[in-house]
Amino acid sequence: MRNLNQDTITEAVLERFAATPNPRLKEIVNSLVTHLHDFARDVKLTDEEWMEGIQYLTATGQKCDAKRQEFILLSDVLGLSMLTIALNHDKPAGCTEPTVFGPFFLEEAPHYELGADVANGAKGDPCLVSGRILSLTGEPIPNALINVWQADEDGLYDVQYMDEDRIQARGILHSDANGNYHFKTIVAEAYPIPVDGPVGELLEATKRHPWRPAHLHFMVDAPGYERLITHVFREDDKYLDSDAVFGVRQTLIADWPRQADGSYTMNYDFVLNPIPTKVSKA
Amino acid sequence: MRNLNQDTITEAVLERFAATPNPRLKEIVNSLVTHLHDFARDVKLTDEEWMEGIQYLTATGQKCDAKRQEFILLSDVLGLSMLTIALNHDKPAGCTEPTVFGPFFLEEAPHYELGADVANGAKGDPCLVSGRILSLTGEPIPNALINVWQADEDGLYDVQYMDEDRIQARGILHSDANGNYHFKTIVAEAYPIPVDGPVGELLEATKRHPWRPAHLHFMVDAPGYERLITHVFREDDKYLDSDAVFGVRQTLIADWPRQADGSYTMNYDFVLNPIPTKVSKA
Repeated sequence: MRNLNQDTITEAVLERFAATPNPRLKEIVNSLVTHLHDFARDVKLTDEEWMEGIQYLTATGQKCDAKRQEFILLSDVLGLSMLTIALNHDKPAGCTEPTVFGPFFLEEAPHYELGADVANGAKGDPCLVSGRILSLTGEPIPNALINVWQADEDGLYDVQYMDEDRIQARGILHSDANGNYHFKTIVAEAYPIPVDGPVGELLEATKRHPWRPAHLHFMVDAPGYERLITHVFREDDKYLDSDAVFGVRQTLIADWPRQADGSYTMNYDFVLNPIPTKVSKA
Repeated sequence: MRNLNQDTITEAVLERFAATPNPRLKEIVNSLVTHLHDFARDVKLTDEEWMEGIQYLTATGQKCDAKRQEFILLSDVLGLSMLTIALNHDKPAGCTEPTVFGPFFLEEAPHYELGADVANGAKGDPCLVSGRILSLTGEPIPNALINVWQADEDGLYDVQYMDEDRIQARGILHSDANGNYHFKTIVAEAYPIPVDGPVGELLEATKRHPWRPAHLHFMVDAPGYERLITHVFREDDKYLDSDAVFGVRQTLIADWPRQADGSYTMNYDFVLNPIPTKVSKA
């Protein structure tokens, strides 16, 4: 295996991976190598461009820390995140649709009682959020674990502020015995994804805007159901048709009416997808 | 642009990049998005695999520092580095062939006079290296800038040792008025690429060995000639046909005879590719 050229090297690399014990890993590596090589050949990648790519990926990795995930953001703006979701969620009609996870989820969010104010001091107009967690047949799902998180009116999540300990506009709640949930927070506003890193450089160089339409993140877990990761968007947001991360689904857009006192309300029901029961072999 | 699915999202992402001012960047991004999406669809990437990929790339970026370039190493073991070199170096017959740059080059290497010992204390059997820097027509190229670097007999480059200031088995020299160069160093030995990072995990999971055949790195610069980045390999090395980074070219293999006193010699002439002179329009 010497003197490999641009036409022979791909087969040689695939052959080198031939002894991979895990068949799924082998399938993924083979496809990755094939597409990566095809990409380089298609554009006739130069040495300088290769080095720029190396440096770009390195900078992206080094922008990541406990509170920032620049590779997720890159995957989001390239449409890979939404594509992966689409590939994996052919749910039955009637289930709430999933959308992107985003880079700002925190494992360690505070637990709240129903009715509490998860804003916890975050800036924004007050909003009362409510709804139900339901099965496909409309049965309430009690005690479902509900993670919510969102940006404040300045378009920033708590983790984007410099003060290490700020935990605002995020929390964990449980639906009640009738599947209901409700909590106070602030109204969601459109905001730009962070542009102070490699993803921002890409958007600038390609003249893409960084805005996401206003949304509130939800992750809902209940035993016997598939985890639901989604958003609820605000009707009439000007970025609904040009979301920087391609995440908008019509069924996830809700009315967020403004009340006489200047506060908002939003009501949304989530329908979870049951995990199929294993059928025992006869 | 709502409700994108696995079949419609790629076009939507490409359309979002449509206003990219730099046509070359647009070409590269379009091809990258197309191949990235095709890869995800081909393997039907799962949510968990996507997240593993995000974490793998993040870890690779975070393994990089001033002395370690894990993304170059990843590119090397996936054959992308050697493919890029092959795509860009259709040199005239007779020119020395290029090979991979590798992750261990240092901008700040010490300068040496011809004849000096660049090993500077690195462990290994002594070796006297000599040869000429030539044009395609066999003319000597005087005062060419010659960077050399290599691993020691334990298979480690200086930058892989914990002591920050170690600079060994690397240096910068100039060819003399007759295009000749010569210096002392240690003999090159086969060694494994570093496996204490994400690239090592990949090789382990895919049952690939990490070995590279013995080689001495050269980078040669001279005004009017294309930069040459290459190696000289040792004949009869057991890894010549399974180099972990696919870099071996038959024309880069030299004899490194062992002398009566236990030292080695190696002689190799480098032939540089002239940069075409610009023809002025009539």
